[in-house]
Amino acid sequence: MMKGQTIFFNNKPVITGAYSIVGPKEGGGNFGEYFDYVMKDDRFGEETYEKAERKMIHQAISGAIEKSKIKVADIDLILAGDLLNQIISSSYAARDFDVAFLGIFGACSTIAESLAMAGCLINGKQCKNVVCSTSSHFSTAERQFRFPLELGNQRPPTSQWTVTGAGGLVVSQKGHGPVLASATFGKVVDWGIKDVNNMGAAMAPAAMDTMLAHFRDTGRSPEDYDLIVTGDLGKLGSEILIDLLEDNGIKLGLNYNDCGQMYFTRKQATLCGGSGCACSATVLNAYIIKKLIKKEYKRVLFMPTGALMSTTASQQGDSIPGVCHAIVLECEEE
Amino acid sequence: MMKGQTIFFNNKPVITGAYSIVGPKEGGGNFGEYFDYVMKDDRFGEETYEKAERKMIHQAISGAIEKSKIKVADIDLILAGDLLNQIISSSYAARDFDVAFLGIFGACSTIAESLAMAGCLINGKQCKNVVCSTSSHFSTAERQFRFPLELGNQRPPTSQWTVTGAGGLVVSQKGHGPVLASATFGKVVDWGIKDVNNMGAAMAPAAMDTMLAHFRDTGRSPEDYDLIVTGDLGKLGSEILIDLLEDNGIKLGLNYNDCGQMYFTRKQATLCGGSGCACSATVLNAYIIKKLIKKEYKRVLFMPTGALMSTTASQQGDSIPGVCHAIVLECEEE
Repeated sequence: MMKGQTIFFNNKPVITGAYSIVGPKEGGGNFGEYFDYVMKDDRFGEETYEKAERKMIHQAISGAIEKSKIKVADIDLILAGDLLNQIISSSYAARDFDVAFLGIFGACSTIAESLAMAGCLINGKQCKNVVCSTSSHFSTAERQFRFPLELGNQRPPTSQWTVTGAGGLVVSQKGHGPVLASATFGKVVDWGIKDVNNMGAAMAPAAMDTMLAHFRDTGRSPEDYDLIVTGDLGKLGSEILIDLLEDNGIKLGLNYNDCGQMYFTRKQATLCGGSGCACSATVLNAYIIKKLIKKEYKRVLFMPTGALMSTTASQQGDSIPGVCHAIVLECEEE
Repeated sequence: MMKGQTIFFNNKPVITGAYSIVGPKEGGGNFGEYFDYVMKDDRFGEETYEKAERKMIHQAISGAIEKSKIKVADIDLILAGDLLNQIISSSYAARDFDVAFLGIFGACSTIAESLAMAGCLINGKQCKNVVCSTSSHFSTAERQFRFPLELGNQRPPTSQWTVTGAGGLVVSQKGHGPVLASATFGKVVDWGIKDVNNMGAAMAPAAMDTMLAHFRDTGRSPEDYDLIVTGDLGKLGSEILIDLLEDNGIKLGLNYNDCGQMYFTRKQATLCGGSGCACSATVLNAYIIKKLIKKEYKRVLFMPTGALMSTTASQQGDSIPGVCHAIVLECEEE
């Protein structure tokens, strides 16, 4: 049962398979050696970037299922979502699988939302195996949310670079792998930021809100985690989060980092860092889960954030609401 | 545990509150006397139709909570989604409530997706009270998916009219009201229809697929229900569904109908009928649930369908995938 905003999983759901696929720029970044598959180019042999994005989700789902060694027939549900209008990357990819599909939307928090729901479905003994997936693509996001790529517009210093990639996970009732220990569901938080080139500032208050709820509900503090990691706050957003938490009496130490901030090398010039649904999803699958499997991490607090605006909302003068869901991942018990 | 695509709820979740709000055209339709609130105009005192739509969701959620007599503090989650890009109606409405939020997207199947998820969360004892909500608005949908309203374009005979309205429900572990008995989760089905003015034909195969799965998983037949109702297949889509099922050995009788087909009067000239997320959600809340409360219906099979395309997908030559989730509602036991 929920305590505050947190559900503790007694029958801890197991991550039995995790797969990551990224574009060439991402492959040249700090996590390059960890990804399962690096595409040679962002079009992935397709006619459009949108079709490339859905092909990435397809491969991420297939790859995760293959790694989990579970038959497709034993999968109860696919839970997936992405940034594109009407989450077409996920819906069209799900068409290829003979499995029931639930579409979700949490912007860049999507992988946490899907893991939280999968965790509940498995912990509550409603499902045996659930697939979670998400994607983002620099070129589809840029032209949908900002400007035509051909414009070559200048990027402001607070901007981030949408990660091209996709992640897929199989969450199971039985099997071996890192486990989901709890999920803290976030509220929609809006502190009035209207600058669509400063997502870090728009989402940091949501990360703060969920982190405060998490520590309140669990009675824990930051030292209880080997790693506390947000999704794509980027350099500026992470600094804002650290400040906001300190104002609330919580000090984040060296065990805190942000996937977006870590993603690219300095020379890749992405300004505030990586962003997009795939930013946290691919770091989770490629790096964090491998560290949990090797028991180099024992317990991780994974907190992707999402900015819930649309171009229509921005054009009508709305500010940008954020949301953040927190998942606790633990290494398998002996 | 899931059997095929169906989860049977042993601890049957209770619908303790249901609220409907619609526009004036909807108020003049066949369900006019049943709605909780009929707006005087489609702008609902707001500057834009988009802001009016989110205000409707806000009122639907507030209204459902008020009817359920549950305190906002006792609500664990809001599950909501809508047709607008990045589901802004739901996200921005959720900003007003101090409750955790999960965004979902199932196009016009959204209310079934949210009820299915809420059912699982409550049946699995993860949550005590969950709010489900969705909306659609003729003017926001028309200009996002089709043409500017000012164009006054002619509507082809297969077209449907997006219902302006919103529905909210509170689903609880305890309390009085109709119950959720099971949920059958649908697969994404695409038979290659590309005509965005013929949603009924695009979605009918998904309705067939889920209905066949439902009857297979439950061992039931159409006679076991007082009402079998699809969401917004409209006149043509319903006829296609009847034909497709008959080809598969299942005969739908007079207990079958479609919310879209029933929604408007002939004189309202909506061609194939109503559509949109609010079409099935407002008929459910205004009419079906009241009949279940009065025990005029004992058991209802509620099957909203969704068309999962976007304008980008259509412009790139994609066909329209559909999805359908089936919820069994029963009247409260004595």
